[in-house]
Amino acid sequence: MARFLSKLKHVIKINDITPALLEKWGPEECATRSVLATAYRLTHYLNWDDLIYGHITTRIPGNEDHLLINPYGIHYTEVTASNLIKINSAGKLVDQGSAKFPFQPTGAVIHSAIHTNRPDLGCLMHIHSEPGIAVSAAVEKIEPIIQANVELGEISYHDFRGVIFNSEDKEPLSKDFPAPSKTLIMRNHGLLTGGETIEEAFNKMHFLHQVCQCYVNCGYIHTPIPASKLINQQILESSVYGNEECRYDTAPGVQEFEALARLLDYQGLETGYPYSEASKHILERNIK
Amino acid sequence: MARFLSKLKHVIKINDITPALLEKWGPEECATRSVLATAYRLTHYLNWDDLIYGHITTRIPGNEDHLLINPYGIHYTEVTASNLIKINSAGKLVDQGSAKFPFQPTGAVIHSAIHTNRPDLGCLMHIHSEPGIAVSAAVEKIEPIIQANVELGEISYHDFRGVIFNSEDKEPLSKDFPAPSKTLIMRNHGLLTGGETIEEAFNKMHFLHQVCQCYVNCGYIHTPIPASKLINQQILESSVYGNEECRYDTAPGVQEFEALARLLDYQGLETGYPYSEASKHILERNIK
Amino acid sequence: MARFLSKLKHVIKINDITPALLEKWGPEECATRSVLATAYRLTHYLNWDDLIYGHITTRIPGNEDHLLINPYGIHYTEVTASNLIKINSAGKLVDQGSAKFPFQPTGAVIHSAIHTNRPDLGCLMHIHSEPGIAVSAAVEKIEPIIQANVELGEISYHDFRGVIFNSEDKEPLSKDFPAPSKTLIMRNHGLLTGGETIEEAFNKMHFLHQVCQCYVNCGYIHTPIPASKLINQQILESSVYGNEECRYDTAPGVQEFEALARLLDYQGLETGYPYSEASKHILERNIK
Amino acid sequence: MARFLSKLKHVIKINDITPALLEKWGPEECATRSVLATAYRLTHYLNWDDLIYGHITTRIPGNEDHLLINPYGIHYTEVTASNLIKINSAGKLVDQGSAKFPFQPTGAVIHSAIHTNRPDLGCLMHIHSEPGIAVSAAVEKIEPIIQANVELGEISYHDFRGVIFNSEDKEPLSKDFPAPSKTLIMRNHGLLTGGETIEEAFNKMHFLHQVCQCYVNCGYIHTPIPASKLINQQILESSVYGNEECRYDTAPGVQEFEALARLLDYQGLETGYPYSEASKHILERNIK
Repeated sequence: MARFLSKLKHVIKINDITPALLEKWGPEECATRSVLATAYRLTHYLNWDDLIYGHITTRIPGNEDHLLINPYGIHYTEVTASNLIKINSAGKLVDQGSAKFPFQPTGAVIHSAIHTNRPDLGCLMHIHSEPGIAVSAAVEKIEPIIQANVELGEISYHDFRGVIFNSEDKEPLSKDFPAPSKTLIMRNHGLLTGGETIEEAFNKMHFLHQVCQCYVNCGYIHTPIPASKLINQQILESSVYGNEECRYDTAPGVQEFEALARLLDYQGLETGYPYSEASKHILERNIK
Repeated sequence: MARFLSKLKHVIKINDITPALLEKWGPEECATRSVLATAYRLTHYLNWDDLIYGHITTRIPGNEDHLLINPYGIHYTEVTASNLIKINSAGKLVDQGSAKFPFQPTGAVIHSAIHTNRPDLGCLMHIHSEPGIAVSAAVEKIEPIIQANVELGEISYHDFRGVIFNSEDKEPLSKDFPAPSKTLIMRNHGLLTGGETIEEAFNKMHFLHQVCQCYVNCGYIHTPIPASKLINQQILESSVYGNEECRYDTAPGVQEFEALARLLDYQGLETGYPYSEASKHILERNIK
Repeated sequence: MARFLSKLKHVIKINDITPALLEKWGPEECATRSVLATAYRLTHYLNWDDLIYGHITTRIPGNEDHLLINPYGIHYTEVTASNLIKINSAGKLVDQGSAKFPFQPTGAVIHSAIHTNRPDLGCLMHIHSEPGIAVSAAVEKIEPIIQANVELGEISYHDFRGVIFNSEDKEPLSKDFPAPSKTLIMRNHGLLTGGETIEEAFNKMHFLHQVCQCYVNCGYIHTPIPASKLINQQILESSVYGNEECRYDTAPGVQEFEALARLLDYQGLETGYPYSEASKHILERNIK
Repeated sequence: MARFLSKLKHVIKINDITPALLEKWGPEECATRSVLATAYRLTHYLNWDDLIYGHITTRIPGNEDHLLINPYGIHYTEVTASNLIKINSAGKLVDQGSAKFPFQPTGAVIHSAIHTNRPDLGCLMHIHSEPGIAVSAAVEKIEPIIQANVELGEISYHDFRGVIFNSEDKEPLSKDFPAPSKTLIMRNHGLLTGGETIEEAFNKMHFLHQVCQCYVNCGYIHTPIPASKLINQQILESSVYGNEECRYDTAPGVQEFEALARLLDYQGLETGYPYSEASKHILERNIK
């Protein structure tokens, strides 16, 4: 179920980078900030958010030791390009951004642990959605039940060890999420996906979420799945994500992310997203 | 659950046929384009859509070898009469329409395979809704459990053979969906309905969806249904869809489609639907 | 889940009685029309409606043989005081009202059958909501599981005999719904409640719906309920609806219906509801 | 699922304290009234409300024998600072407030019974949400299945004894909810949480609700939970709520409540909430 907050009397624009901030952070960091802030808004739109909890983090191009993370205490509909907080992989504050909220140590531990260990992942997304929580609590191993499974690759699992906020929690977590896995079930807690880009991590979450919802709807959570209902391994592998015929020259998840970002722009939310030519063309037709 | 995007700051009108396009495509094709675009919008309104995926295709009156399909990469709320793409039954581009997105080869394979084999069906609708995915993944055979089953006729099933995008996938698919069946469960994937008209395919999907939702809500997906709970075959057959006493002189699904289309017109979305006299009368009263 | 259609560009006012219609129908019938039209709107608001299907009917004060019913083909958000159709208990048209849609013979058969047999019921409400359909399809007998059961009284059941539209279906239906029962499960079909007033039937449906939703959420539909989880009969009877201490001098369901109707008035929908003094006072404070 | 009623043509402001009322009630009571009214609105926003039923009550600073409670008959979206009713712990009316609706005797019995017995609790919140009702009806004992359980502490249970509205029901109820428990399952009825503050009770309900939703989604309600799926007791205790490292110097639930209250202020609902400096800063940026 998708939601909008455009009914807000006061629209909070996503790309709120001023000339001074552009100068301070440079064009690449600013572009990354806009795309990440858009991802927070879309997480709310898709009903995957949980009050002020959860995090989407991304490396900053040009300084791979720095991460952008949401201020702890603000709602996903309040995240903007300028209020994302910059921390380093040791979990120390580098740049507070434009808001006065701190970052969440728990989030910093989880995300910096994985970012440090997985240089292949530019973005990590961790959510507590309803079907995600249910699957994390109850499913021992996710089986291939629908076409969306094709996109998930190898799925990793991390046992619940309590609320994570000490640095000694870093190693067990990162050990449980080795390359090339981009999908992590945090047991009794929630979901985590990674991607080279924000768009890839987001699209991966879409497919993971669809599988989780299917588990809930099928009641598979507390019932063994009949073998006859599983997609067989050979078909699964022959359909793997990345099959070029099916991607139409765009990077993973970009066409999906662009379509959703355009919905925010139609709301007047000004994503600042670096759209493709086809997107720019339809936006121009529709925004008069 | 129904949704509206009228909260959009920028309303994207459905019937965007200009005089030049009317001349180019002719009145019949233009009318078909408006109805098909309206069907995409209503698919979103009824929460049956899945990001940019899925397709509703229709033959063009006067050239039965040509199909209209959605551009791949645009959201269902962005589909208009003019941006639908015309392809032929071999899956080749005939007319790009007004947007710059390509059509999806996967969709073209699925839909052209069936259209070629089923001259009786003018429209095909394929969706990945939540209850639809669940039933496709887990239910061996749909049984008559509620009044909506009366409308479904014979139900066909197609096993999952991987993401479909090669022409060799066409034959197995079309073989699994013989006439007169208008309802196809694509296992581990989603739902497909067909109709002589867009309205019939859409209404068929409504009833199929209601049955799927009931399966989910009853937990019938992982539990055998007690025989005492099934509608018996004699009652089922005596109630079949098309019983004239119950149809009030309108074609299948038209009165339902008109009611939903009017809701879009109340939003200012300008469907351009060729309404009945009764619809025109109520629209005139309500749109001032 | 509640919904509003106030986002409509064109607001369709509920009480659209003109001076000429007031003269024609008289003040009592006009007041009944407004309350019944409000009930249709609230049925949509509470997500209990199913496209153009289902019916709420009410007797007209002063002519107990006449019923008001919705035109078949209009959406619940389009029902107004003036477009309700007047039929008699034999199912014949008496007054077409302001719209040009016919009434549905099926609805007329179901509702006139019961109205004829149950002079104690002024209003009947029949819906196909998702949890209602599920319970109708699968539950043999509704047990007392939550406080809302207290309000339901004796529950009746009618087996599915096919789509109802012949007069020979009237007797079996009315026989299955004897006084004093106000709650009828139409198996494999949906829910029906009755009340002396529209407000009572509506509130009864609220409680029945809550019980059905609880059945779905508990998975009780396909699992026997442990005896220890049932409310015992003595407690159930000692808490029966109508206990005066709990009703605060208003007729059954009126305070609930007024609260919901006020929400429509805040939307500018102009219910024309004959509000209590307390309601008038809060409306005046809030509508400026 | 979150909802807004900002689509209302007529916005009902939360903080409607006039200078005369400020003088009459004093600044502390007026501040409490605004926060409590905000809690009612957020209960609706989070889809936890049930028509006009349920109650959130709070003690008034400076007069611990007095409680504020909602008028019975008004919708949660209509509650304002001024229309809350003041009663004493014996359930007698002290101040009617600005509306003309009575308070509900049932609510007064439940809440005054607990307030009298639990001086440590300044606020009580009792709801009939869908997953809350389901768990109350069917779950014998809530087990630790997700991270949210960490926040719940000891959970109490009260058997259903009928609709509560006699003073003899007070003792059994209050006996079943001893300190330090802040979470009460009212069997076959609903949920109740308590907190030192409104914010704590509200946040407690968030976590309880998340656990209930997980029970429903996992189908755990009618299936024993495998021991391997439970969070072990040692991990649970080592993660208990109140761990200072994780709270960032704010009182329990305040940062979450502030984030949600800001959403209402963006809607123009004027909560009058006594925001932190960080909240004031972001509000100023976003409300122009």
